[in-house]
Amino acid sequence: MSKADKMASLVFDLKFNDDGLIPAIAQQHDSGEVLMMAWMNRDAIAETLSSGRVCYYSRSRQKLWRKGESSGQEQALRELRWDCDADTLLIMVDQKGVACHTGRRNCFFNAVRDGEFTIIADPEVDPKELYK
Amino acid sequence: MSKADKMASLVFDLKFNDDGLIPAIAQQHDSGEVLMMAWMNRDAIAETLSSGRVCYYSRSRQKLWRKGESSGQEQALRELRWDCDADTLLIMVDQKGVACHTGRRNCFFNAVRDGEFTIIADPEVDPKELYK
Repeated sequence: MSKADKMASLVFDLKFNDDGLIPAIAQQHDSGEVLMMAWMNRDAIAETLSSGRVCYYSRSRQKLWRKGESSGQEQALRELRWDCDADTLLIMVDQKGVACHTGRRNCFFNAVRDGEFTIIADPEVDPKELYK
Repeated sequence: MSKADKMASLVFDLKFNDDGLIPAIAQQHDSGEVLMMAWMNRDAIAETLSSGRVCYYSRSRQKLWRKGESSGQEQALRELRWDCDADTLLIMVDQKGVACHTGRRNCFFNAVRDGEFTIIADPEVDPKELYK
Protein backbone atom coordinates (compact mmCIF):
# COMPACT_ATOMS: atom_id res chain seq x y z
CA MET A 1 0.00 0.00 0.00
CA SER A 2 1.39 3.41 -0.91
CA LYS A 3 1.85 6.06 1.74
CA ALA A 4 -0.99 8.10 0.25
CA ASP A 5 -3.27 5.04 0.30
CA LYS A 6 -2.34 4.33 3.90
CA MET A 7 -3.25 7.86 4.91
CA ALA A 8 -6.54 7.66 3.02
CA SER A 9 -7.23 4.39 4.81
CA LEU A 10 -6.57 5.99 8.18
CA VAL A 11 -9.02 8.79 7.53
CA PHE A 12 -11.55 6.22 6.38
CA ASP A 13 -11.23 4.09 9.52
CA LEU A 14 -11.62 6.88 12.06
CA LYS A 15 -15.03 7.45 13.58
CA PHE A 16 -16.41 10.91 12.99
CA ASN A 17 -19.49 12.33 14.71
CA ASP A 18 -22.72 13.25 12.93
CA ASP A 19 -21.14 16.53 11.85
CA GLY A 20 -18.19 14.69 10.29
CA LEU A 21 -15.84 15.83 13.07
CA ILE A 22 -13.46 14.14 15.50
CA PRO A 23 -11.93 15.76 18.61
CA ALA A 24 -8.18 16.37 18.48
CA ILE A 25 -6.12 16.92 21.62
CA ALA A 26 -2.88 18.81 20.98
CA GLN A 27 0.02 17.92 23.29
CA GLN A 28 3.47 19.53 23.27
CA HIS A 29 5.64 16.61 22.17
CA ASP A 30 8.54 17.09 24.59
CA SER A 31 7.03 18.60 27.76
CA GLY A 32 3.74 16.68 27.70
CA GLU A 33 1.76 19.89 28.21
CA VAL A 34 -1.81 19.59 26.93
CA LEU A 35 -2.19 22.72 24.84
CA MET A 36 -5.75 22.69 23.54
CA MET A 37 -8.56 20.61 22.15
CA ALA A 38 -10.19 21.37 18.83
CA TRP A 39 -11.95 19.48 16.05
CA MET A 40 -10.87 18.03 12.72
CA ASN A 41 -12.75 16.76 9.70
CA ARG A 42 -11.39 14.44 7.02
CA ASP A 43 -9.90 17.30 5.02
CA ALA A 44 -8.18 18.79 8.09
CA ILE A 45 -6.55 15.45 8.91
CA ALA A 46 -5.44 14.92 5.33
CA GLU A 47 -3.95 18.41 5.15
CA THR A 48 -2.24 18.04 8.53
CA LEU A 49 -0.63 14.76 7.48
CA SER A 50 0.46 16.02 4.09
CA SER A 51 1.69 19.46 5.14
CA GLY A 52 3.11 18.60 8.57
CA ARG A 53 1.40 21.70 9.93
CA VAL A 54 -1.69 21.27 12.10
CA CYS A 55 -4.99 22.22 10.50
CA TYR A 56 -8.27 22.02 12.42
CA TYR A 57 -11.87 22.59 11.38
CA SER A 58 -13.42 25.68 12.93
CA ARG A 59 -16.98 24.94 14.01
CA SER A 60 -17.78 28.65 14.41
CA ARG A 61 -16.35 29.71 11.04
CA GLN A 62 -17.28 26.40 9.38
CA LYS A 63 -14.06 26.11 7.46
CA LEU A 64 -10.54 24.74 7.72
CA TRP A 65 -8.50 26.52 10.36
CA ARG A 66 -4.77 26.43 9.78
CA LYS A 67 -3.57 26.95 13.33
CA GLY A 68 -1.53 30.14 13.43
CA GLU A 69 -2.79 31.53 10.11
CA SER A 70 -3.79 34.78 11.86
CA SER A 71 -1.61 34.76 14.96
CA GLY A 72 1.57 33.15 13.66
CA GLN A 73 1.39 30.66 16.54
CA GLU A 74 1.68 27.55 14.37
CA GLN A 75 1.81 23.91 15.40
CA ALA A 76 4.22 21.57 13.65
CA LEU A 77 3.01 17.97 13.62
CA ARG A 78 5.35 15.44 15.23
CA GLU A 79 3.04 12.43 15.44
CA LEU A 80 -0.64 11.70 15.05
CA ARG A 81 -2.18 9.17 17.43
CA TRP A 82 -5.69 7.88 17.92
CA ASP A 83 -7.41 5.93 20.62
CA CYS A 84 -8.75 2.42 21.04
CA ASP A 85 -12.22 3.46 19.85
CA ALA A 86 -10.78 5.44 16.90
CA ASP A 87 -12.98 8.39 17.87
CA THR A 88 -10.39 10.75 19.41
CA LEU A 89 -7.07 12.03 18.09
CA LEU A 90 -3.99 12.91 20.13
CA ILE A 91 -1.62 15.04 18.08
CA MET A 92 1.92 15.49 19.29
CA VAL A 93 3.02 18.92 18.16
CA ASP A 94 5.73 21.50 18.47
CA GLN A 95 3.91 24.69 19.41
CA LYS A 96 5.38 27.96 18.21
CA GLY A 97 4.74 30.61 20.85
CA VAL A 98 1.42 30.21 22.61
CA ALA A 99 -1.54 27.97 21.82
CA CYS A 100 -4.30 30.01 23.46
CA HIS A 101 -5.96 33.09 21.99
CA THR A 102 -5.71 34.69 25.45
CA GLY A 103 -1.92 34.72 25.06
CA ARG A 104 -1.39 31.81 27.44
CA ARG A 105 0.76 28.86 26.53
CA ASN A 106 -2.23 26.49 26.84
CA CYS A 107 -6.00 26.86 27.02
CA PHE A 108 -6.56 25.01 30.31
CA PHE A 109 -5.84 27.79 32.81
CA ASN A 110 -9.07 27.59 34.83
CA ALA A 111 -8.96 25.11 37.68
CA VAL A 112 -10.59 23.76 40.75
CA ARG A 113 -7.53 23.12 42.91
CA ASP A 114 -7.89 22.00 46.52
CA GLY A 115 -11.57 22.91 46.37
CA GLU A 116 -10.96 26.49 45.23
CA PHE A 117 -11.30 28.21 41.88
CA THR A 118 -7.90 29.27 40.61
CA ILE A 119 -6.44 30.83 37.46
CA ILE A 120 -3.28 28.79 37.13
CA ALA A 121 -1.49 30.66 34.33
CA ASP A 122 -1.08 34.25 33.18
CA PRO A 123 -0.80 35.39 29.56
CA GLU A 124 2.73 35.27 28.18
CA VAL A 125 1.81 37.47 25.24
CA ASP A 126 -0.65 40.37 24.93
CA PRO A 127 -3.52 39.02 22.77
CA LYS A 128 -3.50 42.36 20.93
CA GLU A 129 -0.05 41.45 19.70
CA LEU A 130 -1.31 38.12 18.36
CA TYR A 131 -4.14 39.41 16.20
CA LYS A 132 -3.06 42.84 14.98
CA MET B 1 -20.02 31.69 48.36
CA SER B 2 -19.95 28.25 49.94
CA LYS B 3 -17.84 25.50 48.41
CA ALA B 4 -20.97 23.65 47.30
CA ASP B 5 -22.32 26.84 45.67
CA LYS B 6 -19.00 27.40 43.92
CA MET B 7 -19.10 23.90 42.51
CA ALA B 8 -22.70 24.33 41.36
CA SER B 9 -21.69 27.60 39.72
CA LEU B 10 -18.85 25.88 37.86
CA VAL B 11 -21.14 23.25 36.46
CA PHE B 12 -23.58 25.97 35.45
CA ASP B 13 -20.95 28.03 33.59
CA LEU B 14 -19.51 25.19 31.51
CA LYS B 15 -20.74 24.77 27.95
CA PHE B 16 -22.31 21.40 27.26
CA ASN B 17 -23.22 20.11 23.81
CA ASP B 18 -26.76 19.42 22.63
CA ASP B 19 -26.66 16.06 24.45
CA GLY B 20 -25.69 17.77 27.71
CA LEU B 21 -22.13 16.45 27.52
CA ILE B 22 -18.64 17.94 27.63
CA PRO B 23 -15.41 16.18 26.61
CA ALA B 24 -13.00 15.37 29.44
CA ILE B 25 -9.33 14.64 28.78
CA ALA B 26 -7.69 12.60 31.55
CA GLN B 27 -3.98 13.26 32.12
CA GLN B 28 -1.74 11.49 34.63
CA HIS B 29 -0.91 14.30 37.04
CA ASP B 30 2.80 13.61 37.50
CA SER B 31 4.01 12.11 34.21
CA GLY B 32 1.85 14.21 31.89
CA GLU B 33 0.70 11.10 30.01
CA VAL B 34 -2.64 11.62 28.28
CA LEU B 35 -4.60 8.55 29.35
CA MET B 36 -7.98 8.81 27.62
CA MET B 37 -10.79 11.08 26.56
CA ALA B 38 -14.36 10.49 27.62
CA TRP B 39 -17.50 12.53 28.26
CA MET B 40 -19.12 14.00 31.35
CA ASN B 41 -22.55 15.43 32.05
CA ARG B 42 -23.46 17.75 34.94
CA ASP B 43 -24.06 14.85 37.31
CA ALA B 44 -20.73 13.22 36.46
CA ILE B 45 -18.84 16.44 37.17
CA ALA B 46 -20.68 16.99 40.44
CA GLU B 47 -19.99 13.44 41.57
CA THR B 48 -16.33 13.62 40.53
CA LEU B 49 -15.82 16.84 42.49
CA SER B 50 -17.64 15.61 45.59
CA SER B 51 -16.20 12.08 45.67
CA GLY B 52 -12.69 12.76 44.38
CA ARG B 53 -13.02 9.74 42.13
CA VAL B 54 -13.52 10.29 38.42
CA CYS B 55 -16.98 9.56 37.08
CA TYR B 56 -17.79 9.88 33.36
CA TYR B 57 -21.01 9.53 31.41
CA SER B 58 -21.12 6.49 29.16
CA ARG B 59 -22.70 7.38 25.83
CA SER B 60 -23.12 3.72 24.88
CA ARG B 61 -24.68 2.66 28.20
CA GLN B 62 -26.36 6.05 28.72
CA LYS B 63 -25.57 6.22 32.40
CA LEU B 64 -22.91 7.39 34.83
CA TRP B 65 -19.69 5.45 34.48
CA ARG B 66 -17.58 5.37 37.61
CA LYS B 67 -14.19 4.68 36.06
CA GLY B 68 -12.91 1.38 37.41
CA GLU B 69 -16.26 0.14 38.72
CA SER B 70 -15.86 -3.09 36.73
CA SER B 71 -12.10 -3.26 36.21
CA GLY B 72 -10.81 -1.79 39.47
CA GLN B 73 -8.68 0.64 37.43
CA GLU B 74 -9.90 3.77 39.19
CA GLN B 75 -8.86 7.39 38.66
CA ALA B 76 -8.38 9.64 41.69
CA LEU B 77 -9.03 13.29 40.89
CA ARG B 78 -6.13 15.65 41.57
CA GLU B 79 -7.38 18.77 39.81
CA LEU B 80 -10.13 19.72 37.39
CA ARG B 81 -9.29 22.26 34.70
CA TRP B 82 -11.26 23.72 31.83
CA ASP B 83 -10.34 25.71 28.79
CA CYS B 84 -10.76 29.28 27.59
CA ASP B 85 -14.03 28.44 25.85
CA ALA B 86 -15.33 26.46 28.85
CA ASP B 87 -16.26 23.61 26.53
CA THR B 88 -13.50 21.09 27.31
CA LEU B 89 -12.28 19.66 30.62
CA LEU B 90 -8.75 18.56 31.46
CA ILE B 91 -8.76 16.37 34.54
CA MET B 92 -5.50 15.70 36.30
CA VAL B 93 -5.74 12.24 37.79
CA ASP B 94 -3.83 9.50 39.50
CA GLN B 95 -4.54 6.38 37.46
CA LYS B 96 -4.60 3.08 39.27
CA GLY B 97 -3.25 0.38 36.94
CA VAL B 98 -4.19 0.95 33.32
CA ALA B 99 -6.67 3.36 31.75
CA CYS B 100 -7.45 1.44 28.56
CA HIS B 101 -9.83 -1.51 28.27
CA THR B 102 -7.21 -3.21 26.07
CA GLY B 103 -4.92 -3.44 29.09
CA ARG B 104 -2.67 -0.63 27.93
CA ARG B 105 -1.70 2.23 30.20
CA ASN B 106 -3.38 4.75 27.87
CA CYS B 107 -5.82 4.59 24.98
CA PHE B 108 -3.70 6.39 22.36
CA PHE B 109 -1.54 3.52 21.12
CA ASN B 110 -2.23 3.85 17.39
CA ALA B 111 0.06 6.25 15.59
CA VAL B 112 1.27 7.61 12.33
CA ARG B 113 4.96 8.03 13.11
CA ASP B 114 7.42 9.06 10.40
CA GLY B 115 4.74 8.39 7.81
CA GLU B 116 4.13 4.79 8.93
CA PHE B 117 1.36 3.16 10.94
CA THR B 118 2.69 1.95 14.27
CA ILE B 119 1.30 0.39 17.43
CA ILE B 120 3.32 2.26 20.04
CA ALA B 121 2.38 0.37 23.20
CA ASP B 122 1.63 -3.20 24.19
CA PRO B 123 -0.90 -4.29 26.84
CA GLU B 124 0.50 -4.33 30.37
CA VAL B 125 -2.40 -6.40 31.64
CA ASP B 126 -4.44 -9.14 29.98
CA PRO B 127 -7.89 -7.60 29.37
CA LYS B 128 -9.41 -10.89 30.55
CA GLU B 129 -7.91 -10.16 33.95
CA LEU B 130 -9.59 -6.74 34.02
CA TYR B 131 -13.16 -7.86 33.40
CA LYS B 132 -13.47 -11.30 34.90
